[in-house]
Amino acid sequence: MGRPIRLGMVGGGNDAFIGAVHRIAARIDGRFQLVAGALSSTAEKAQASGAAIGLNPDRTYDDFKAMAIREARLKDGIEAVAIVTPNHVHYAAAREFLKRGIHVICDKPLTSTMADAKKLEKAVAQSDALFVLTHNYTGYPMMRQARQMVADGALGNLRVVQVEYAQDWLTQAEDFKQAEWRTDPARSGLGGSTGDIGTHAFNLAGFVTGLTVDSLCADLQAFVPGRQLDDNAHVMLRYEGGARGMLWCSQVAPGNENGLGLRVYGDKGGIEWRQENPNRLWFTPYGAPKQLLTRGGKGAMDVAERVTRIPAGHPEGYLEGFATIYREAADAIEAHRDGHDVPADVTYPTIADGMAGMRFVEACVRSSKRDGAWVKLGS
Amino acid sequence: MGRPIRLGMVGGGNDAFIGAVHRIAARIDGRFQLVAGALSSTAEKAQASGAAIGLNPDRTYDDFKAMAIREARLKDGIEAVAIVTPNHVHYAAAREFLKRGIHVICDKPLTSTMADAKKLEKAVAQSDALFVLTHNYTGYPMMRQARQMVADGALGNLRVVQVEYAQDWLTQAEDFKQAEWRTDPARSGLGGSTGDIGTHAFNLAGFVTGLTVDSLCADLQAFVPGRQLDDNAHVMLRYEGGARGMLWCSQVAPGNENGLGLRVYGDKGGIEWRQENPNRLWFTPYGAPKQLLTRGGKGAMDVAERVTRIPAGHPEGYLEGFATIYREAADAIEAHRDGHDVPADVTYPTIADGMAGMRFVEACVRSSKRDGAWVKLGS
Amino acid sequence: MGRPIRLGMVGGGNDAFIGAVHRIAARIDGRFQLVAGALSSTAEKAQASGAAIGLNPDRTYDDFKAMAIREARLKDGIEAVAIVTPNHVHYAAAREFLKRGIHVICDKPLTSTMADAKKLEKAVAQSDALFVLTHNYTGYPMMRQARQMVADGALGNLRVVQVEYAQDWLTQAEDFKQAEWRTDPARSGLGGSTGDIGTHAFNLAGFVTGLTVDSLCADLQAFVPGRQLDDNAHVMLRYEGGARGMLWCSQVAPGNENGLGLRVYGDKGGIEWRQENPNRLWFTPYGAPKQLLTRGGKGAMDVAERVTRIPAGHPEGYLEGFATIYREAADAIEAHRDGHDVPADVTYPTIADGMAGMRFVEACVRSSKRDGAWVKLGS
Amino acid sequence: MGRPIRLGMVGGGNDAFIGAVHRIAARIDGRFQLVAGALSSTAEKAQASGAAIGLNPDRTYDDFKAMAIREARLKDGIEAVAIVTPNHVHYAAAREFLKRGIHVICDKPLTSTMADAKKLEKAVAQSDALFVLTHNYTGYPMMRQARQMVADGALGNLRVVQVEYAQDWLTQAEDFKQAEWRTDPARSGLGGSTGDIGTHAFNLAGFVTGLTVDSLCADLQAFVPGRQLDDNAHVMLRYEGGARGMLWCSQVAPGNENGLGLRVYGDKGGIEWRQENPNRLWFTPYGAPKQLLTRGGKGAMDVAERVTRIPAGHPEGYLEGFATIYREAADAIEAHRDGHDVPADVTYPTIADGMAGMRFVEACVRSSKRDGAWVKLGS
Repeated sequence: MGRPIRLGMVGGGNDAFIGAVHRIAARIDGRFQLVAGALSSTAEKAQASGAAIGLNPDRTYDDFKAMAIREARLKDGIEAVAIVTPNHVHYAAAREFLKRGIHVICDKPLTSTMADAKKLEKAVAQSDALFVLTHNYTGYPMMRQARQMVADGALGNLRVVQVEYAQDWLTQAEDFKQAEWRTDPARSGLGGSTGDIGTHAFNLAGFVTGLTVDSLCADLQAFVPGRQLDDNAHVMLRYEGGARGMLWCSQVAPGNENGLGLRVYGDKGGIEWRQENPNRLWFTPYGAPKQLLTRGGKGAMDVAERVTRIPAGHPEGYLEGFATIYREAADAIEAHRDGHDVPADVTYPTIADGMAGMRFVEACVRSSKRDGAWVKLGS
Repeated sequence: MGRPIRLGMVGGGNDAFIGAVHRIAARIDGRFQLVAGALSSTAEKAQASGAAIGLNPDRTYDDFKAMAIREARLKDGIEAVAIVTPNHVHYAAAREFLKRGIHVICDKPLTSTMADAKKLEKAVAQSDALFVLTHNYTGYPMMRQARQMVADGALGNLRVVQVEYAQDWLTQAEDFKQAEWRTDPARSGLGGSTGDIGTHAFNLAGFVTGLTVDSLCADLQAFVPGRQLDDNAHVMLRYEGGARGMLWCSQVAPGNENGLGLRVYGDKGGIEWRQENPNRLWFTPYGAPKQLLTRGGKGAMDVAERVTRIPAGHPEGYLEGFATIYREAADAIEAHRDGHDVPADVTYPTIADGMAGMRFVEACVRSSKRDGAWVKLGS
Repeated sequence: MGRPIRLGMVGGGNDAFIGAVHRIAARIDGRFQLVAGALSSTAEKAQASGAAIGLNPDRTYDDFKAMAIREARLKDGIEAVAIVTPNHVHYAAAREFLKRGIHVICDKPLTSTMADAKKLEKAVAQSDALFVLTHNYTGYPMMRQARQMVADGALGNLRVVQVEYAQDWLTQAEDFKQAEWRTDPARSGLGGSTGDIGTHAFNLAGFVTGLTVDSLCADLQAFVPGRQLDDNAHVMLRYEGGARGMLWCSQVAPGNENGLGLRVYGDKGGIEWRQENPNRLWFTPYGAPKQLLTRGGKGAMDVAERVTRIPAGHPEGYLEGFATIYREAADAIEAHRDGHDVPADVTYPTIADGMAGMRFVEACVRSSKRDGAWVKLGS
Repeated sequence: MGRPIRLGMVGGGNDAFIGAVHRIAARIDGRFQLVAGALSSTAEKAQASGAAIGLNPDRTYDDFKAMAIREARLKDGIEAVAIVTPNHVHYAAAREFLKRGIHVICDKPLTSTMADAKKLEKAVAQSDALFVLTHNYTGYPMMRQARQMVADGALGNLRVVQVEYAQDWLTQAEDFKQAEWRTDPARSGLGGSTGDIGTHAFNLAGFVTGLTVDSLCADLQAFVPGRQLDDNAHVMLRYEGGARGMLWCSQVAPGNENGLGLRVYGDKGGIEWRQENPNRLWFTPYGAPKQLLTRGGKGAMDVAERVTRIPAGHPEGYLEGFATIYREAADAIEAHRDGHDVPADVTYPTIADGMAGMRFVEACVRSSKRDGAWVKLGS
């Protein structure tokens, strides 16, 4: 382990949940050092937030563009930046860093509009810098294992995908004061629950199965009176090759905290996983008893062990899964720094995943507006 | 408790799983005595099967019509008959008993064709005898409680229904030898998994929520090569009044034995239940911790206690839930015998439930044939 | 299946929980017909209780001795009797039937005193009739499987046994009105929780492991002020051959309904089981992933299938496990009737199990009185 | 958040599990910066290990005493040291730092011998520096909540404590090569499983209940042939005030990874918790349904929220619990630095907990040698 990668952050000021998560994730494996930030678009709040997390005032910026310009010139300027703003800022911020060769680690969903997404896709293509999207659930060791098991044929030909992400924190109107940007189309984008958590479910299912969605049919609801974005979505999926899926995301399902669950069935076996106890993966080889595969336990495969920090039975959680994305990013950035190819086993969500997520949300909204008609995913 | 009700049985010969279940269910509460049977359409098998379960040879019939005629004339002839044949025989058999005033307890789904269903509906309407359909999962105490909680407003306005019934026993082609009639359209009807288990899921969701499905959109698959009926179905539901649902049924999902699960969410709370451990009902009043309600436990309501036999923590299972349908039937039959109204708390699935199930299967098939279009449920 | 065995019952009048359980258990498999009863020691209650369950008044007795005498003389008198009284009546009642050649199915624990137990042991030895003790948890299919797995060496040499039975219904003083005889030494015997549920735990551990306890050390408490019998017991066990165990039973542990659990560990594997979801048995072959073995599922062994009624995923419960003891008794009684040996696979708890349970309770009390000293189990 | 506290480490060289854990724990909240280390007692390994984790070679020491002497003199020398060596080195290492006013964060158990423990106790008493013992499970938010609930009387008067810590990694003889010092009396101390994990169970039970053990009775086994230290221990506890407990620890129980579980019962309620899914705490107020309290969820108390980083349903795990001990240590160290009292809500295990753990192990061994006699805990 050499010196930590110098990291900046855009967004993530006081009280922003996801900014604190990114900072912990960046710290856990000691591969990054946060040295600069434009933590808020409000100058005062930016300074206060920077001070609160111990940033050097000299490198606490009021504006991400100013930060990108100056840091790119500093001898020991940041090498990577974490973008953790509301969605509508992702593109504008990412662009400034990408064009200056600074690697971008960006929260999901990719952007608030498809137009922005396409511009961002171009910006990534034109930059030598890396772009990492924090679909963090792909960092869980047992999701790595599930993906490998599918690839190895342990489930046979895939037939059915059941994926869901249910929460309850937006059940009532007053609840969304705490994160009102998430229910504001201007800042969040077309999708409400579809964008905020549906993209995670969609991404995870694709990550594990390797399948591509051909078309979908979506029934979106905004159950809370006055809400402009969907807070519940029912989606049926048709994958290329014939597999079928169901996706449910909801932010109005009382009793669900972060109920992300994935089940995949093929003609030779099935797997089941729940994010709330992520160290366990159920595997049933058809015709034999169900097995409980555990992170670090007997039956854990190399791809899972590679991203495992502590022994079986000592739970790793959400922050460690998130940290794994940062660790993968660090491996990729160091390879890039040294002029090497990114090693084959380094695995993280990319701009392509971000684009797929955008197309998913767009298709959901399009289908729902057409009264739940089947629609092709755009490309 | 007076003398047991004299019961006959049509179908349920040697090796028929569901016949044995009905016999145990009829015995558990001591309210019925099985005294006659036409257990098979093959004379030899009918006799052998009757002997195996200790029926009097004099009341072991080769033919359900002969049985109906003779039993109706006997002074101590059967008062009720259980029909547990393959689906395509339900109507013809039920008709013979109904028109002779013998109560019918019939396995589900109602019939194999809509035409038969309509004729059966008429036969029931024209008979003074009772018709009970064994959607047995409605006999579980915690499903009774869930229904009451919904009715009492504990969940508020309902928004989302998630129901599923997943099995794996038809995962591979060779598996269905053991029950080949279930995959044969001529005997099973239009629906495969939709008819066999989807109707249970559909019925249970309706039972608990009291909601009526307005329209649905279904994507049915027959994954196993050569199979003529669906073995997996994805269905989205729109209820009258605005609630939405998803229903998944599958017989090709490895690792699922009888994975019937129901989750219902409203603006004030949510409930979750799994058939494989039916003595537990999870209830989350929005804004408070999740509660574990148990059969017989603290928090169990009268409607649950009414159908509970033993204390909390001593599990009742599938057979007791099934037996509850028989016990309800017995209460109704005795009230009928005594010229009383059926007591208000006596609860069992009726011809109306059967018709609803038929319309569900028909709509699923119709939607799927139209490439997953939204269709209204027929009436 | 021939004609049902004619059964009588002593005890089990109105409101007696365990009498109703025995009656259902006797009915489930249709092997018994209840035709006579002395359901209460109070004449009026005996008659009312008999009428309530549909007994012929002519065979409803006020007194078990009168019943034994008369039934023994009847041409179609009872062949077996279920004794479901409070413990202090077990011996006196059993004796009357045993000496007249009527088989006895007796609730546990065996008796209220060791003196009675020894007399009963003698009575059983001197009678040609069978004596079956309803340690019903040994009827669960997965306990049969666990026993077989241990016998087959799947766990290797046994080292550790962890068994517990926790309830909460006697947590507070007022609670025990509902079953006050259970906390009365004169009727219940030396042991409170040890006798009522500790004997079940002790028996089940012995059933599954095949191990014999050499000595134990017990710390008994009566936490509720004024209670005369233990309501909580901590016991350490030393088995012959070197294995060690812990046994906890409690009736004052809030949140436990019927929390009977058994875990057994050897040098090659471990098993875990909980009564409240009895259809599942966890098995970990050392060095491999944990497996979930289910009743009726893949991995179920013949000994479990033999006592299984319905497919995997449709839960069997407490009543079915209890019914299995009755079914085993029926097999044994029929073999006896036909002059055959009881088939080798017929398995039920005997007088020896009853005596072992008595010695367990006695040793617990003896150890506890000696301030928790280690004591040998008597013989 | 001001500048990080400068931290050194003794032990924790390449391949040492617990050293890596301490380093991550120290990083998670950004309160410490690791700047010096004597990571191994072998010079070459010390240097290689230091380099591997990016330590400055100038501050990579071959010897903890040299490190203590030099760091104490450096202007920016370490302010605290983490001691993560095998147990027999704890005292000697801690002493060197304590006497130079450097705060000590020490892994458990306290020392390998009682003599060392007493000397360490004296050294702590004589030093102005803080001593923190990493009984990390007390850092779990739901254990903080449990402790507060007990203190608030939510369980009433405590009666029964059931605590266990079961593992399986030492099931077979060859397994312990990987951590052979743990089974070596010279380095580990008197206790095997009792010292390594029994102390955790003992400490956690005391932390939550606030109860003090008066006496115990222990049956220790070394099941694996040739093993010198216990690998399984059965212990019964008598608390001051009348509560009773059972403690089981084992490293030979196949199927258990890190099965630490705690159950506490009083006359008004009970709680249940399992380390492998630590975000959940079951609470049953006697007479009401069981509740599922979750970290960050509805029902979480201030003491739990205080040590919670992310929302409910996003699991925190072992590393976060461990990090909480480090965070508490940081709070205490900063208060000390500023000349303030340690804030009242800062909570971490101290030398007193370490001494209690030593007395527990010593009493277990003493009791077991006296054939399982009851013994008083020393003082």
